[in-house]
Amino acid sequence: MRNIKLTIEYDGSNYKGWQKQPTEISIQEIIEDAIFKITRDKVKLEASGRTDKGVHAFGQTASFFTNSDIVKYKLIRGLNSVLPDDISIRKVEEVNSEFHARYYAKGKSYKYIIYNSQVRSPIYRNNAYHVPYKLDMNKFRQNVNMLIGTHDFTSFTSIKEGTDNKIRTIYSIDIEQKNEVIELTFKGSGFLYNMIRIIVGTLVDVSRGRIKSNIEEIIDAKNRKRAGITAPSHALYLMEVYY
Amino acid sequence: MRNIKLTIEYDGSNYKGWQKQPTEISIQEIIEDAIFKITRDKVKLEASGRTDKGVHAFGQTASFFTNSDIVKYKLIRGLNSVLPDDISIRKVEEVNSEFHARYYAKGKSYKYIIYNSQVRSPIYRNNAYHVPYKLDMNKFRQNVNMLIGTHDFTSFTSIKEGTDNKIRTIYSIDIEQKNEVIELTFKGSGFLYNMIRIIVGTLVDVSRGRIKSNIEEIIDAKNRKRAGITAPSHALYLMEVYY
Repeated sequence: MRNIKLTIEYDGSNYKGWQKQPTEISIQEIIEDAIFKITRDKVKLEASGRTDKGVHAFGQTASFFTNSDIVKYKLIRGLNSVLPDDISIRKVEEVNSEFHARYYAKGKSYKYIIYNSQVRSPIYRNNAYHVPYKLDMNKFRQNVNMLIGTHDFTSFTSIKEGTDNKIRTIYSIDIEQKNEVIELTFKGSGFLYNMIRIIVGTLVDVSRGRIKSNIEEIIDAKNRKRAGITAPSHALYLMEVYY
Repeated sequence: MRNIKLTIEYDGSNYKGWQKQPTEISIQEIIEDAIFKITRDKVKLEASGRTDKGVHAFGQTASFFTNSDIVKYKLIRGLNSVLPDDISIRKVEEVNSEFHARYYAKGKSYKYIIYNSQVRSPIYRNNAYHVPYKLDMNKFRQNVNMLIGTHDFTSFTSIKEGTDNKIRTIYSIDIEQKNEVIELTFKGSGFLYNMIRIIVGTLVDVSRGRIKSNIEEIIDAKNRKRAGITAPSHALYLMEVYY
């Protein structure tokens, strides 16, 4: 059997997230249906990880096994011709049979976009988090630096999360600011459920003075209650999965 | 009477352009209605210029006369509370009685976003022009340079345009490329009807080899037929009006 890896872009606005669900429309289901239309093969897509309701991706990855002998360029064209406007396949690769989009992932990068202005933005309304408060950007940067490295991120994940090991490594967080728009790019070994959204919510709360502790103290507390709000999903983008 | 200048951001997707029309919904009408709701004054907004159906703005300007004595911060808050999600007022200023948003404008800047990839982009689908052809970016840059300066831009405007004087000055065109995204920022004394969209369409046609002449020859021809297609409106943003 062939093992096919897809690199996928999507606007998550209209979906209940990546993962297939009994009653709601998921991105996984839409792509599995498209693969069926093109190859007549009922496959199961294994993604690098779930993305939540509303989260977008420039470079989600997923793989599937198939007996179809369709050539790669016909598969990508075929899939993009039947997929809706808000999902596209950017790349099709044939990988060895051991490859698994989740277990083989060595790291990921995400982008989070903050729109920081008293006035709401019509143009950024669907893809950035509107923060109407004044932020102390020095404090913001100092606290961002405290996140880099290997830490137990228990304070920065939702209680629903079942995995025991909450230790993750953040390699870098780049901050790019252009007028009202603050783009944060996270690179790390992996991220816990809601981790980036809680980190962003906490950075905002700390930089506007709503939370008095700093990120280091909040990490040390290992307590979700010490962190800030979960920032909205529509401003989060899965950029790339590293193998 | 007070003369009030507004700086306005909008997502033009849902409107038939800036200018008030008898049967279609325009941005001008929506804002005039909002001003009436807040000040009870039926005003006529004078913009820096029309934007076409689908065109967006980060910094459109418009002014109006009013007898209302509402203070500026209440006016901006009031307007933003009654305006729809896709329009916002970014700034309210009181200007002298001679000020006119169009006649006083000394220049404008626009941004145009091209998405250059064989594969369509879900995330950029509503705000960039998808160009699936390979572009020769050296040729693109060379031809961009031929546009800078004062020229008769007859070849780059739609025939509908009535003004006799088609001489305009382009101060600069910045090209910022990041992977598939090419952002062009135009600064100039003013732009003719559809001028930027025809310039972009022509740059694309020249850089993909569909048009053999270069921009200099097309300018010299003073003939719309020698230029390329009119690139779509949804990728064009009025960034700033200079006074």
